[in-house]
Amino acid sequence: MPYRSLPPMTEITANVTAALNEDIGSGDLTAQLIPATRQAEATLLCRDAAVVCGRPWVDRCFELLDPTIRIEWLVEEGAEVAPDTLLARLHGAARALLTGERTALNFLQTLSATATRSRQFADLVRDYPVQLLDTRKTLPGLRLAQKYAVRCGGCHNHRLGLYDAFLIKENHIASLGSITAVITQARGIAANRKVEIEVESLAQLQEAIDAGADIVMLDNFNLEQMHQAVQLTAGRLKLEASGGMTAEQLRAVAATGVDYISLGTLTKDIKAIDLSMRFTL
Amino acid sequence: MPYRSLPPMTEITANVTAALNEDIGSGDLTAQLIPATRQAEATLLCRDAAVVCGRPWVDRCFELLDPTIRIEWLVEEGAEVAPDTLLARLHGAARALLTGERTALNFLQTLSATATRSRQFADLVRDYPVQLLDTRKTLPGLRLAQKYAVRCGGCHNHRLGLYDAFLIKENHIASLGSITAVITQARGIAANRKVEIEVESLAQLQEAIDAGADIVMLDNFNLEQMHQAVQLTAGRLKLEASGGMTAEQLRAVAATGVDYISLGTLTKDIKAIDLSMRFTL
Amino acid sequence: MPYRSLPPMTEITANVTAALNEDIGSGDLTAQLIPATRQAEATLLCRDAAVVCGRPWVDRCFELLDPTIRIEWLVEEGAEVAPDTLLARLHGAARALLTGERTALNFLQTLSATATRSRQFADLVRDYPVQLLDTRKTLPGLRLAQKYAVRCGGCHNHRLGLYDAFLIKENHIASLGSITAVITQARGIAANRKVEIEVESLAQLQEAIDAGADIVMLDNFNLEQMHQAVQLTAGRLKLEASGGMTAEQLRAVAATGVDYISLGTLTKDIKAIDLSMRFTL
Amino acid sequence: MPYRSLPPMTEITANVTAALNEDIGSGDLTAQLIPATRQAEATLLCRDAAVVCGRPWVDRCFELLDPTIRIEWLVEEGAEVAPDTLLARLHGAARALLTGERTALNFLQTLSATATRSRQFADLVRDYPVQLLDTRKTLPGLRLAQKYAVRCGGCHNHRLGLYDAFLIKENHIASLGSITAVITQARGIAANRKVEIEVESLAQLQEAIDAGADIVMLDNFNLEQMHQAVQLTAGRLKLEASGGMTAEQLRAVAATGVDYISLGTLTKDIKAIDLSMRFTL
Amino acid sequence: MPYRSLPPMTEITANVTAALNEDIGSGDLTAQLIPATRQAEATLLCRDAAVVCGRPWVDRCFELLDPTIRIEWLVEEGAEVAPDTLLARLHGAARALLTGERTALNFLQTLSATATRSRQFADLVRDYPVQLLDTRKTLPGLRLAQKYAVRCGGCHNHRLGLYDAFLIKENHIASLGSITAVITQARGIAANRKVEIEVESLAQLQEAIDAGADIVMLDNFNLEQMHQAVQLTAGRLKLEASGGMTAEQLRAVAATGVDYISLGTLTKDIKAIDLSMRFTL
Amino acid sequence: MPYRSLPPMTEITANVTAALNEDIGSGDLTAQLIPATRQAEATLLCRDAAVVCGRPWVDRCFELLDPTIRIEWLVEEGAEVAPDTLLARLHGAARALLTGERTALNFLQTLSATATRSRQFADLVRDYPVQLLDTRKTLPGLRLAQKYAVRCGGCHNHRLGLYDAFLIKENHIASLGSITAVITQARGIAANRKVEIEVESLAQLQEAIDAGADIVMLDNFNLEQMHQAVQLTAGRLKLEASGGMTAEQLRAVAATGVDYISLGTLTKDIKAIDLSMRFTL
Repeated sequence: MPYRSLPPMTEITANVTAALNEDIGSGDLTAQLIPATRQAEATLLCRDAAVVCGRPWVDRCFELLDPTIRIEWLVEEGAEVAPDTLLARLHGAARALLTGERTALNFLQTLSATATRSRQFADLVRDYPVQLLDTRKTLPGLRLAQKYAVRCGGCHNHRLGLYDAFLIKENHIASLGSITAVITQARGIAANRKVEIEVESLAQLQEAIDAGADIVMLDNFNLEQMHQAVQLTAGRLKLEASGGMTAEQLRAVAATGVDYISLGTLTKDIKAIDLSMRFTL
Repeated sequence: MPYRSLPPMTEITANVTAALNEDIGSGDLTAQLIPATRQAEATLLCRDAAVVCGRPWVDRCFELLDPTIRIEWLVEEGAEVAPDTLLARLHGAARALLTGERTALNFLQTLSATATRSRQFADLVRDYPVQLLDTRKTLPGLRLAQKYAVRCGGCHNHRLGLYDAFLIKENHIASLGSITAVITQARGIAANRKVEIEVESLAQLQEAIDAGADIVMLDNFNLEQMHQAVQLTAGRLKLEASGGMTAEQLRAVAATGVDYISLGTLTKDIKAIDLSMRFTL
Repeated sequence: MPYRSLPPMTEITANVTAALNEDIGSGDLTAQLIPATRQAEATLLCRDAAVVCGRPWVDRCFELLDPTIRIEWLVEEGAEVAPDTLLARLHGAARALLTGERTALNFLQTLSATATRSRQFADLVRDYPVQLLDTRKTLPGLRLAQKYAVRCGGCHNHRLGLYDAFLIKENHIASLGSITAVITQARGIAANRKVEIEVESLAQLQEAIDAGADIVMLDNFNLEQMHQAVQLTAGRLKLEASGGMTAEQLRAVAATGVDYISLGTLTKDIKAIDLSMRFTL
Repeated sequence: MPYRSLPPMTEITANVTAALNEDIGSGDLTAQLIPATRQAEATLLCRDAAVVCGRPWVDRCFELLDPTIRIEWLVEEGAEVAPDTLLARLHGAARALLTGERTALNFLQTLSATATRSRQFADLVRDYPVQLLDTRKTLPGLRLAQKYAVRCGGCHNHRLGLYDAFLIKENHIASLGSITAVITQARGIAANRKVEIEVESLAQLQEAIDAGADIVMLDNFNLEQMHQAVQLTAGRLKLEASGGMTAEQLRAVAATGVDYISLGTLTKDIKAIDLSMRFTL
Repeated sequence: MPYRSLPPMTEITANVTAALNEDIGSGDLTAQLIPATRQAEATLLCRDAAVVCGRPWVDRCFELLDPTIRIEWLVEEGAEVAPDTLLARLHGAARALLTGERTALNFLQTLSATATRSRQFADLVRDYPVQLLDTRKTLPGLRLAQKYAVRCGGCHNHRLGLYDAFLIKENHIASLGSITAVITQARGIAANRKVEIEVESLAQLQEAIDAGADIVMLDNFNLEQMHQAVQLTAGRLKLEASGGMTAEQLRAVAATGVDYISLGTLTKDIKAIDLSMRFTL
Repeated sequence: MPYRSLPPMTEITANVTAALNEDIGSGDLTAQLIPATRQAEATLLCRDAAVVCGRPWVDRCFELLDPTIRIEWLVEEGAEVAPDTLLARLHGAARALLTGERTALNFLQTLSATATRSRQFADLVRDYPVQLLDTRKTLPGLRLAQKYAVRCGGCHNHRLGLYDAFLIKENHIASLGSITAVITQARGIAANRKVEIEVESLAQLQEAIDAGADIVMLDNFNLEQMHQAVQLTAGRLKLEASGGMTAEQLRAVAATGVDYISLGTLTKDIKAIDLSMRFTL
């Protein structure tokens, strides 16, 4: 599964190149203390319970430094691992392994953090048909990488960016006079993109349904109102509640029957997974 | 103070350009619902208690989108603010403000998170002369930005990358046979860089002192051993303890008299500061 | 209208920079025959009947060469002009005007060609509610620019690229076993993107309707079959016929009631608009 | 022959990279419906009579997506093919073949269009010693690619850009006072570049000959005047007539004995060659 | 005069950006010791006798660092100055002036070195009609900049690169069988580029004349043979002698009547001009 | 030894790519006179006595042009060779060898020049413990390459750029009031970077020692004062004298016991090593 929807390889390469450049700069001073021809083995250990995510970034990192390095992965991308699990064995030039270590781990600890958090939330609502969505609240420069980690964790992607769907808010409605007017305008601009609109009342929801919106975001609806919204909609469009809630609240919202709950925390908060690499030179 | 040691403007521009590109892609669909000539005002609010960090990234973001946007900051970079503090007022073209909003906030919420965490740790050891250091465990692509946020928070920077100092570990010592040999080798490679070395015992510490190391990292020393290390060293070089500890442990380590404590959590863990922008079109 | 949905300015700048670089190379030899301080006026004339498109590329071209050049446009972007219409007057440094002339005209003649062709086709079906769509058969490197020219001409955009919607063909259906299976799979991959699927019979169309497709492309349907498809669908999804047809055929297809007709010729065939610039030094 | 004077590989790579990026963006959604390990065969068919041009761009396109894809070409670059000729067979990962299909075909249909048009014009004057030249009226970003296609078609290249030869017009002459003055000035600026100058009369032609011009462009000369120009020149420099003419006119101009006829249409007008790729997964 | 044939501004910007990046890296540490708001004046002094060259690179350097810095030049580009001449006064932010100082001076000392050497050689043969040419033996990355410096010094440019003229040597002749064959082939590849060919005897020279070469390089001709070559040629093409000679030899070669003498030393050997900047903060 | 501390491969690639691009531009005209399939052998000869430096740049140059070219080096990087030494044999496609020849030689002649000069100076003070240092007076764009060449020649590197150490001068001291204040400030900004300070008297030197400077540059000290400085310092910090001196003066300064002498001439002055490549096609 997990490799299925990887970001384009050019994006992964761009991520890794930027990270290697900022770490190596004018050159790795310390690596020069090891003879250039020295070979080494390294083991990559995960100390935390985690969902592993970021293998292709690790692969690319060492590939760019030295294409002869071999990496033997012992767990699948997207797998849940217990604390102190051996993730991989690496073989190759000692200098390149030492130079790439930190950059590789930084990707793996950050993306696994996002995947792990996503899996935790997904598990909370496993018994409901609701889909948990991420947001555009991501770490600058890692948008596609984190969106991928969210999928590895079992949640789903909201918009990737400003380019792939409409998300219409109060200001836009005010600017064009009505929900109907703004949706009509959006259709005229790009007929083959989904149109999502934020509403503040059941009346606005009805107008959005009539105007043919694809998705409606329920702004500040309480549980009772969400339930009514689900009834009113009757599957004619998708309903999204948006997050910032405790685990119990999340399950209660899921129980209302909304289709999506979006959660900024999936990508904006990072509790880095604890990883370490051990070398045998 | 805070602007004093900003990363080079080319780095800030590179950060912001990458983030704008990944968000805007082939174009902001929704912004087209607002007339191109519409002007707007926006207010930027911080909902959490926080150390504000990232103003120059916000400035650059809107400057790249539309140089005529004006931003009036109401708090200084590096300032501690209470929840629900108004941070800034923005004036200019409505479309550009809407297009840049998320990218600008993503920088501010991430860098302020790093600065805030750094300030919290710095406050814990305020009454000791110890300096808290960050590590190279950073978010890929944001190394210099996060290092700057650490300084805004009142902590200090360890190496920026692999290029600016030696950090010699067990493997390097083993490769060259002794602490003395490896330090001599490092001096020969680059005499004007600091040499830091990791030691596992007081005997190794003594050898590092004799060999003229600049900084010694104490690996797995308990509090008693740290205290002895401080006594033995008597200021002839700097001593660094490395982190992963509770608040109480941190203060106890500080009390031993070591010069530095390095903490990966300053930059690898992110609890995004809650920000919001409100528009008046 | 026309400036409304311009590609991102970074894209326009990238287009223009590439074109200037390939034309100027190591330097404009001939321009050196004019004194560096010489000012000039130039007039930009359109010799053909055309829909004018590409003003922002012309603006950016001269802006990059010399920000002090002033361009006074006499026609709106997207306007239809008669042969021998004066489009603009330019004022500024003679060398920069001469150096930029060809690059500016190349954009304007190519994008106006696309807009003009689009307008001609749009006019053919003006009295039907059908929308004419472009395809991904574009000039390499000018995708967003040509998609914009299509809109200036009064037609509409199909997918901008492989990233913004699904377009499922026979191979994908075969790979997953059924139309229902492939659409379900697509929804699972990205719930908030439109799913278009190509069908070869009314039975397949029925299956696509049941499976919840957003758009169906009718492959090799004759007029009678298209008519039946419209009846069967009854507005539950959008129907697309695809092109390669004479003007009469186009109108006949439009008369069947399909929602969209896609035409590769809008962007892949170019009959450059005849433009000239005249200088007064 | 045809590969002989290919643009630099860095240019081809730049062309292809830009085109792949604009098509793939954040990722190919639809390709994910095919299993990642699925292999496929594809055949590339040309439906039109055409001169095939652009093979290296097709090769590079798939090479960048997946270096293990194999392409077996059945026709030579520059070959004339009848309608419905099989051009190539491709083997490899199904996803990469599907992802690259449109970009590869866009290059091939555009460059073959240019080569085919060039061949048609070259054939018209086959029995005259005249050379047909392209101009700088090219598709922005594809200058070197189209110049190469012109050569594949059997025509020749005028200037590649502003950097490789002088082309002096009325304005330059006026600015420096005389044809003699302007040619002397050009020689002083860059002695080892060809100097071409546009003249409006036989008297000006004589002055250009005396001043040592390399090439003279005859501006608005009728057939009789062209004939006189050829007589007057007697091979001391090259004479260029410039185009915008019917097939009969072209042959009449060729018959006057001028050395070159330049034709903007070779590169600015595109009638895309009709290509299709068929897959067996 | 000197600004007449500056390289394209994009090239100058690329030169300066690369140089600033390699000097500043992760940031100018020392500049932080000066308050951010401090203004300064600086004077730029030239300690050597020199031809000043590189002003636009200095201008661009400070412009990129801080557009508000003002530079008041006291000498013209290309001017000869005596030792200890004040070249310019600079005003602006102290930090930006300090950060840019070394990069700016590195350009000025290197390009002025090239211009100064060129002027010295040009002066040696001032009383002969010969032109001194540079070669492609340049400092990597500074080709166009040094070619410009050569012109500022009063010498002339040979080929800028491999792209703008043919330079045919022994191997090419051998490969195609004869001088006539190789020149014919070159004309067929690119009719509007100059063809230069290297010959080893008067017989070969005669063949080159007959075949219509534009320039002939005389390989290992002694003074007597050069004189004969000039006689034989009688102005039908240009003759080039190539360098590596003492001042006396240079004048003797010039006296033979050859048109060009090419000298690698103009660009490959650098005796940096001694410059210094003094600050008043 | 010499390969030990090579600049990052990304830097070498950037150097070579820039140089190839500026030489090849729109394509190597002359190489087309050789059949595309022709193989060749070439020998690389060094005509001068020299220290060979730049092999990795030569390797990368041909690797980028054609990865199948083989280079057989006959001398080690950093080796001293006598005049007319055969350095390498190259085998591969004739066109790629011809196209890369000049760019490869330009790197080798420039970097070997720097290494050779460095070796000459290093030899002058071989019998003293002093280290000779380079400066930041380098050829723009070749900073890391030249710093590497200096090491190949047996000298040592001062700062690589503005980012890796403090170098405090008179202006900074004045700005902060005292040597003690400025050093304290520097420590606060970046504790793990070396601090060098320039002093003008023994009193200032004493203050620098007391304030804990790492290196002191002696500005305008005569030999007697240098000797006193060495006595006063007694190894508590490093002393640097700076250059611009004759060979005799250099030895006299070395004899005073200073630790470092810095010499701008190592990198700013270039006497290109005379190389040639001979082909057998």
